[in-house]
Amino acid sequence: MNEFALIRQHFAKAIVNDDVALGIGDDCALLIPPSGKHLAVSMDTLVAGTHFPEGMAAKHIATRALATALSDLAAMGAEALWFTLALTLPKADEPWVGEFCESLLHFADTHNCALVGGDITRGPLTVSVQVHGAVTPNTALKRSGAKPDDIIYVTGSLGDGAAALAVLQQKFTVRRSSQDYLQQRFYRPTPRLQEGQLLVGTASAAIDISDGLLADLGHICDASGAGALVNVNRLPMSEHWRSSVSLDKALDWAVSGGDDYELCFTVPREKINTVEEWIRQGRLKATAIGKITANAGIFMVNNGKTLEFDVEGYKHFD
Amino acid sequence: MNEFALIRQHFAKAIVNDDVALGIGDDCALLIPPSGKHLAVSMDTLVAGTHFPEGMAAKHIATRALATALSDLAAMGAEALWFTLALTLPKADEPWVGEFCESLLHFADTHNCALVGGDITRGPLTVSVQVHGAVTPNTALKRSGAKPDDIIYVTGSLGDGAAALAVLQQKFTVRRSSQDYLQQRFYRPTPRLQEGQLLVGTASAAIDISDGLLADLGHICDASGAGALVNVNRLPMSEHWRSSVSLDKALDWAVSGGDDYELCFTVPREKINTVEEWIRQGRLKATAIGKITANAGIFMVNNGKTLEFDVEGYKHFD
Repeated sequence: MNEFALIRQHFAKAIVNDDVALGIGDDCALLIPPSGKHLAVSMDTLVAGTHFPEGMAAKHIATRALATALSDLAAMGAEALWFTLALTLPKADEPWVGEFCESLLHFADTHNCALVGGDITRGPLTVSVQVHGAVTPNTALKRSGAKPDDIIYVTGSLGDGAAALAVLQQKFTVRRSSQDYLQQRFYRPTPRLQEGQLLVGTASAAIDISDGLLADLGHICDASGAGALVNVNRLPMSEHWRSSVSLDKALDWAVSGGDDYELCFTVPREKINTVEEWIRQGRLKATAIGKITANAGIFMVNNGKTLEFDVEGYKHFD
Repeated sequence: MNEFALIRQHFAKAIVNDDVALGIGDDCALLIPPSGKHLAVSMDTLVAGTHFPEGMAAKHIATRALATALSDLAAMGAEALWFTLALTLPKADEPWVGEFCESLLHFADTHNCALVGGDITRGPLTVSVQVHGAVTPNTALKRSGAKPDDIIYVTGSLGDGAAALAVLQQKFTVRRSSQDYLQQRFYRPTPRLQEGQLLVGTASAAIDISDGLLADLGHICDASGAGALVNVNRLPMSEHWRSSVSLDKALDWAVSGGDDYELCFTVPREKINTVEEWIRQGRLKATAIGKITANAGIFMVNNGKTLEFDVEGYKHFD
């Protein structure tokens, strides 16, 4: 089967929303940007063997690729609109494409994000997703807005990405129900889109945690010209794996593991009550873990003792 | 050097236009869509060994990747605005990235298209470019607008892409000046953006020729529910290579070769005078090559004799 037939058969099923004037099948898609909004765009690439294990099921590659891209929209407080897909495949494996596509379009629908175009090529398995979202001008959550004394929060729990990878690589064993939890967190992390949009106007800075808390909080600090003090006793970790590893291992995964796709955000003191109220109401699952400091550098403390970490997180070329 | 340092050093040089509220360096770029316009978006992937020869210079890969993506905007009659880049590299080769980036940003600047974001990953050499353009609502040149009796035109000349590839693969020899011409056509094809924008309101359908005239005119015919009759004596071919090959080879390259990145467009009879006037004035370099027919199928004729071709053009998975 050739690429055109593949595209027609599978990707043409994509839902076309009212804001899509022309979808898949021409030289370009034609999109109707929401009036009075700015566009937020981000592109993420997953390479087999680098960003996910070789042989991972097509349906999981699809959800992971879109989830990690949508996570960048979440980090800006943007609403998801559309995405495009560049899919490079070693061969025209029709069942593989069918499974990939069904999973991708279902996940996209869950997040109100329409597939509007892309490219399918032959080569080593690589998936690039570009997401497009909308934000009200001058309200997007940037990395650069944190100020000294702002409180640092993270959504959800940290370390799941690293724990899940260890399970997938058979370096770590958990009970069956925890295995299911961790697989979901790896294959289908939930982009924190609602949380990001809720935080617009309240958070002073935000980033999604893809490279690890230390690295990503570091990006906030660098962009904001500040530092941070984190109390590691406060780091939220899931009981699905926490009690099965040493404290050192747990902190390593939570701080440097990456692949959590939670949001790390900062809140000025005068707006903390708002965030805490959301947390009490169950509208936001988030935990205060520390504060922004005027001095550069990130310090992780445990009962007053400063801890040492590999501060680099995961960097592709190191 | 890690990916962050690479990005900072090279890609941060990208020019930020007034319509970019936030450029490279955060989770998303923030873009200000032009008021009252629709967005045209397209994504193109080039894989080493599939879409360009292994070992092609970084500067040439850069221009070819952006040119082929911009060609899709040209085919819709869109004005170029922004692009993003997903670059997958086998290793963090700093001089390679420097050369790639300088060439890319220079070419982008030539076409008023701003680099606003992307992703750099480790893996087999792959370049994905997503371009964003603007069109006035309901004026974009689609594939589906051709009507029987419309005249078919192509811009520039056909077959250069195939001739150039033959030269690069050392299967074909031309004199030095022609070699320079063909290398430019392969490494740095000119996206016909001005031509596409000129044709808005006049052409009834358009496509860019990436897979070969037969395949791409076939897309217009399929989308328009029509056929085509092409007089191969009219096909524009460059003297840089035409006289060095047989007529059969020349027609094969011009009809099925692909990689020309010229526009194929159709014009209703009542608007031909406009197009012919532009051609006389030198505002448009284009040649009438045939007409749209009510019956499906594309017929290539030479002095009344119907010719046989491999009608597939280049398809990645065949």
